[in-house]
Parts: sequence; C-alpha cells; structure tokens
Amino acid sequence: MTQYQKALAGEITPEMEIVANNEHLPAELIREEVAAGRLVIPANRIHLKKGLVPVGIGISVSTKINANLGNSPVAGDVEKELEKVHCAVQYGADTIMDLSTGDEIDRLRQNMIDNVAVPVGTVPIYQICEELDDILDMTPQNILDAVEHQAQQGVDYMTIHCALLQRHLPLVKSRITGIVSRGGSLTAKWMAVHKEENPFYTHFGELCEIMADYDVTWSLGDGLRPGCLHDASDAAQFGELSVMGELTIKGRKAGTQVMIEGPGHVPMDQIEMNIKRQIDVCHGAPFYVLGPLVCDIAPGYDHITSAIGGAMAAMYGAAMLCYVTPKEHLGLPNSEDVRNGVVTFKLAAHAADVARHRIGARDRDDELSRARYSFDWQKQFELSLDPQRAYSYYKEARGEKACPNPDDPNRERFCSMCGPKFCAMKITDDLKRILEEIQ
Amino acid sequence: MTQYQKALAGEITPEMEIVANNEHLPAELIREEVAAGRLVIPANRIHLKKGLVPVGIGISVSTKINANLGNSPVAGDVEKELEKVHCAVQYGADTIMDLSTGDEIDRLRQNMIDNVAVPVGTVPIYQICEELDDILDMTPQNILDAVEHQAQQGVDYMTIHCALLQRHLPLVKSRITGIVSRGGSLTAKWMAVHKEENPFYTHFGELCEIMADYDVTWSLGDGLRPGCLHDASDAAQFGELSVMGELTIKGRKAGTQVMIEGPGHVPMDQIEMNIKRQIDVCHGAPFYVLGPLVCDIAPGYDHITSAIGGAMAAMYGAAMLCYVTPKEHLGLPNSEDVRNGVVTFKLAAHAADVARHRIGARDRDDELSRARYSFDWQKQFELSLDPQRAYSYYKEARGEKACPNPDDPNRERFCSMCGPKFCAMKITDDLKRILEEIQ
Repeated sequence: MTQYQKALAGEITPEMEIVANNEHLPAELIREEVAAGRLVIPANRIHLKKGLVPVGIGISVSTKINANLGNSPVAGDVEKELEKVHCAVQYGADTIMDLSTGDEIDRLRQNMIDNVAVPVGTVPIYQICEELDDILDMTPQNILDAVEHQAQQGVDYMTIHCALLQRHLPLVKSRITGIVSRGGSLTAKWMAVHKEENPFYTHFGELCEIMADYDVTWSLGDGLRPGCLHDASDAAQFGELSVMGELTIKGRKAGTQVMIEGPGHVPMDQIEMNIKRQIDVCHGAPFYVLGPLVCDIAPGYDHITSAIGGAMAAMYGAAMLCYVTPKEHLGLPNSEDVRNGVVTFKLAAHAADVARHRIGARDRDDELSRARYSFDWQKQFELSLDPQRAYSYYKEARGEKACPNPDDPNRERFCSMCGPKFCAMKITDDLKRILEEIQ
Repeated sequence: MTQYQKALAGEITPEMEIVANNEHLPAELIREEVAAGRLVIPANRIHLKKGLVPVGIGISVSTKINANLGNSPVAGDVEKELEKVHCAVQYGADTIMDLSTGDEIDRLRQNMIDNVAVPVGTVPIYQICEELDDILDMTPQNILDAVEHQAQQGVDYMTIHCALLQRHLPLVKSRITGIVSRGGSLTAKWMAVHKEENPFYTHFGELCEIMADYDVTWSLGDGLRPGCLHDASDAAQFGELSVMGELTIKGRKAGTQVMIEGPGHVPMDQIEMNIKRQIDVCHGAPFYVLGPLVCDIAPGYDHITSAIGGAMAAMYGAAMLCYVTPKEHLGLPNSEDVRNGVVTFKLAAHAADVARHRIGARDRDDELSRARYSFDWQKQFELSLDPQRAYSYYKEARGEKACPNPDDPNRERFCSMCGPKFCAMKITDDLKRILEEIQ
C-alpha cells in the first residue's frame, strides 16, 4: 500500500511521523493532508530501505525546493555531477532531480539514490530517448519498461507528461517559444508524426500500477508550460492543466500520490491566478513550480527572475519550487551555480513560509536580527543560509582587521558600510540607554 | 518656479517634454501627474545647466531604480567611487545617491554632479555629522547651511528625516533592531539628548524655501523604517508615516516636489498593505522603497531578498526602488557588487512594469524570446540587461565551440543544458513544420 492508501485507511505511517516531526505539526494532520491528496511524501520503498529521510510536499507544510542536476551529452561527467548533488544537498535542497541525458545515466542515478537521503526525481522519457536512436521509435512497452526500471532503482517521484493531448498541439502554433519542456516536445513530436494519442496518457492506468507498486509519486509534467511571458496562461497551458485535473482523480483512484508541475515564465500579475486555478482544477494536489520567471530579459540572472516568481507562487500556495541557476538558458550549471541556485530558492521558499505565517518560520530571522543588532558577527554568520559567503564578504570588506569573535573586546561594533561614526545600530544602542535614563 | 508650480500653472516645461518622450506618454499627462503630486522630476536648476537628463518618478511612468554610492570613513577613495558611479549608470541606474561619509565629500559629490546625466540625491545630515566633532553639536543653522550648500552644488533630491518626532522615540523600544536609518538614528540621538523636537521638522518651512529656490525634490526620509521582519509595520513606522503625510501637504503648499521613502524589511504578505497605506496617507506622493527585504537570513544574497520585495512593491505602486547589493549588512560594495545590484533591480523594476501593463513594457521580452527561439544567440545577448554576463556564461558552458553568430552556418541550435538531441526549442521547431505539413 502507498502512503496515500494507508492515510485513507487511517494509518499514520513512520514516514508521516517523520514529516510531522520535521514540520512541527501533529502526525494526524499529516495523515489527513495525505489522505486529502494535498500532501505527498515521495518515498519509494527501495530508497526508504537505503536511508531516504521522507519529505512532505504540500500546502500545509513548509515550502520545499528541488535542485535539477544531471549531465547532458555536451557537458558533465558522472563524478562532477555527484559533486554538484552533494553541494545542492549541503545548501539545503529538499529534493534532487536527475535530468541526465548523457552517458552512464544508470550509474549516475544509482549513485545519487544510494548516497543522498533526500527524495530523487527523474523524467523517464530522457532515458528512453537516450537509449533509442530516434524518439519516434518509442513504443508503449519502452515506456512501461523504463518507468519500472527506474522505480526499481529507487526513484521517488517521476515527471511524466501524460496530460498533453492531440487537441492541444495546434494551440502551440501562436506561441513565440513553442514547447520548452524537453519531455513535452519529445512526446509532441511522437504524437504528431504517428498521429496517435499521447502514449503516456493512453497507458496511464498501467503506469499507475507500477507507481503504486513502489509508491513512486506522480509529478504530472507540464509539457506545455510557457517558455516566455508572451505564452503564459494561454489555451495550450490551461488545456493541459484541465487534463491534469482528470488524471489527478484517476491517479488517486489507483492509489498513487499525485503532484502537479507548473510554469514556467509568468508575469507577476498572473501568478496568483495561476496558483489558485491549479489548486482548483487539480483538486488541491501539491503544485510544483519551475520558477516562474517574471521577465525574459535577464539571462545570467534567471535565478533571480525566477526566485521573484517562486516566492510569490509559494506565498499563494505552491508547495515546491524548482530552483533555477544563473546559467539557465545558457548552459549546464557548475557547482557554484548550483550553490547560488539553491540558496536563492531557499530564501524565496523561506520568505513565503514567513508570509504564510507557518509555525516558527520567522524565529531564525528574529534570532539573526538580534545577533546583528548586538554585533555578534559570528552568530549572524552561523544563522545565515550561506555562512561561508556572508563571512567572506564581511572579511573582504573589512580586510585583515575583520574580527567577528563576540568574546574579543576588539570586535567591530560597525561594518564598513557605515563605519563607527555612522553606524545606525550603534547609535540606536546609545539612544536606548539615553531613553532609559530619561524615562 | 519649480516643476510642480509650473505644472499647477498649466505649463508644460522642457523637462516634462523629455520625460513624456522617454516614457512614450503625452506631455499633458506628465504635467497633470506633476500637478497632482503623483510624479516628481528631480532636476536642480544647476544640474540642469550641467547636462542633467530629467527623469520622472511616479506611478504613471516606468519604475525607476536608484543606486547608493559614496565612500565611508573605513573604505572607498574618491576615484574608486567614481568608477562605481559610472558602472551603476552603465548598467541602468536611473538615479544615483551619494551617501559619502568619508573624506573629500564635496569633491566626490561635485564630480558626480558634473559627470553624470542622471539625478543625484544626498542625505545632508551625513555631511553635517562628518564636519562636526559630535552630532549633538548640530544647530538649525548647520542644517540650513548644509542643505543650501548641497543645493548650490546641484543636488537634485535630498533625503531628510523630518517626520521622526519626539512622540515616536519610545515606540522604538520594543524593536529588535531599533533604528537602522543612519540619518534617523543621528536625528533621534540629537532629539533624545537635547529633549527638543526634530530640528528638520521645526525648520521644515525654511528648508522648503531652499528646496524651492533650486527645485530640489524632497525625499522625506523614513528614519523609523523597520530593520528586520519583526519590526515591520509597527507603531513607530506608521507613526512617522502619518507625519510624512502632513509634510507632503506642507511641502506642496510651499511649491516643492515631494516623494516619500519607505521600508526596509517587510514580510511579503505585508507589502501590498504598506504600499497602499503610503499612497493613501501621503496623498499619492511617489513612493521610493529600500528593498523591501522579505527575509533576514540571507546576508550575502540580500540583493535577491530585496529584489523580491522590490518587484512586488513596484507592482503594487512604488515608483522607485533603491537597489541593494550582495554586500548589504556586511560591507561597502565594490564595482562587481554595484553591477549585480543594479542589474538585479533593473529586472525587478522591469518585471513590475510588465505586471502593471505599462505601454510597451513587454516588447523587449518578446523580442528576446523570438531571438531565443530562433537560436540567434547574438541578438539574445544584445537584448539582455547584461549582455557581457550572458555571453560569458554561454561561452563558459560551450567552451571554444561557442559560436553565437547567426550568419555562421555552424552556430549551435541548442545549448549545453540539453544538447542537440534534447533541445525542446529545436524539437518544437521540427514539430511546427510537421504540424504545418499535416494541417
């Protein structure tokens, strides 16, 4: 039985207990949320045996972030990718997706699953495409085999583009950037040439059986997500979304856990509408968004354009944000890009948790602010999302004089932004004493 | 007469014409907005003579961004600061504030004003404090002299903390980070020790006369802006805001142009309320926000925490965003930090312009997206906010094989993220042809 089926049966699983504990929420609430389909716990039985620490993804728990990794035929060897995986986890990625399309896909994936305690996701069509000479040769059996193979490896959730149908294809014609989902475009090409319905859709029931066997969570892929502002919220995107809504119900009937992937590139004024519409159409299934990027003119800075959209999406109810690195649209990220992407999305997710008034979400902010006000530089760095970077910037600005140790009588009660005479916090500290004497 | 007085008299000034032209709006609309106090054109007569290109700041025109520069007693010589000024303007800063508190303030400022065509702002109390042994020695005459001196130099707008009153001081006690505005804390200390009302408030009328003489625009400083999430939207902040509302009316009566400074650190769920309240309380005066930062736990990444808040603030009606660099809270920025801060805020401001449906705001996004879809790398870079960085990332990922020239038959129709076999845009391009053949 899957987490969903057990939740429906009233059972609180050990995985639900762990999630409840980590989220500081009652286990019964977690069970109720899983049973309602509003929370998923992607935890393949096989990965669980190998040390997976279950993570809850849903509107009632803290916002999660995913880091996409994996090599491509043009870049990235296995060892380098594994280095990046560890970097992503170190900086706080809640899940990892292996999007490898290059060599040694199996070895890389098995390594990831065996060595990371966070849930691992994949997009099975990548391996199918890699192993065939031409995606047009893909058969339904290839699909079932690939999904079963990856489930056996211990993959916790899979992005499969089941909801892109024949009737949606003509809707893409008026777009500027067509289909920007790799899985979506491969599937669409297969459908267009063979003039057949999407095989992932027609074989959804059989796929559900495999998913249920291992308790692999669905991440219903949005093959028609917009790839630029112009294409956002169009008939293609929402046409696919309504099929996702149907499949959510079918997936639940088959006992599987279902989450939904979302855009993409969306102007800020359409984000709230997009999230509310997804939650409504997909019966409360957790929403896993890619960005969204709020403008198209900042290649090299798309971790930021997408963190703006991601923070807003999470505030309005998205459950997981897929990170974007500064290299988006330009190339595969290196470790430093992964670090920048992960920390950027951690801060966006955290800001949303604060905005949604999640329990204890602001405690760390308050603690860091107290450390800041008392010039306890060391504690301020420790409480930071990226202590090393905060310290290195401080040190760079202060040079050899930097002295963050709170026990040192020579530590600075100012930073180089203002210097001692102009430090507002130092002045207010004086002021507080003055006010106390007066009143 | 000031721009405001001329607008009230029905006159369309050459400066309004320039603003109208740059914003693709009718000059009469600009005049109306200036007359209503919803738009300011900070243009000191003296800077105008030296080549200032007037900029409009208000809800009806595109969102502007400001870059704070200037040395501190601990860091930054004049030549290095001027380098940063040019870097900020190159990457698109719409205005520059000279916040120098170190040596040679006058020479640095005069150099800025003489050499940049964008409006220059200052915080006069910094120079007052620098020139006195102790801020407690400050007299009203010091204040009037400093403001007149800087107005004569050609400063276009000045941040002065006039609205922080005696009755607000006790409200600061319950805060975690007290007063984080340097000008606010200096003023508060003076007020607390002398037990006198804020001299910038008591001499507001005389200050208005100087401002009107040169047409220096008020930037009513928020001395009590919150310095952490905990302190946001508290009685101190809103107490000062209501005095800003009174002073807006007084300033307009004296013929001056008025804009209002805003927070600071604000949780995302309070941003819309903050902006609407400011617009309401301050009678539509343009709102110039510092961030706001949406969480406190990301030192080293505060250009991003603040760009999230800034983009949202601008979407809800803020007129100008003050950039924040990655060094915020840690030290003075170097040129690379300035570049990161400026580009980050340009993209945030731009995203807000798109979200507000400002005329033509999305054109550049659409054009870049078309270039992206047709693998015209060179055009994609040219349309980017930071072409150099986009190109360098692309080149880094592609190595020596990089070939962005659209006329070169060998140029890549993919990037290293996906490689040729998995490039969604390339596949959709194939797909489009297939669909056209079919239908």
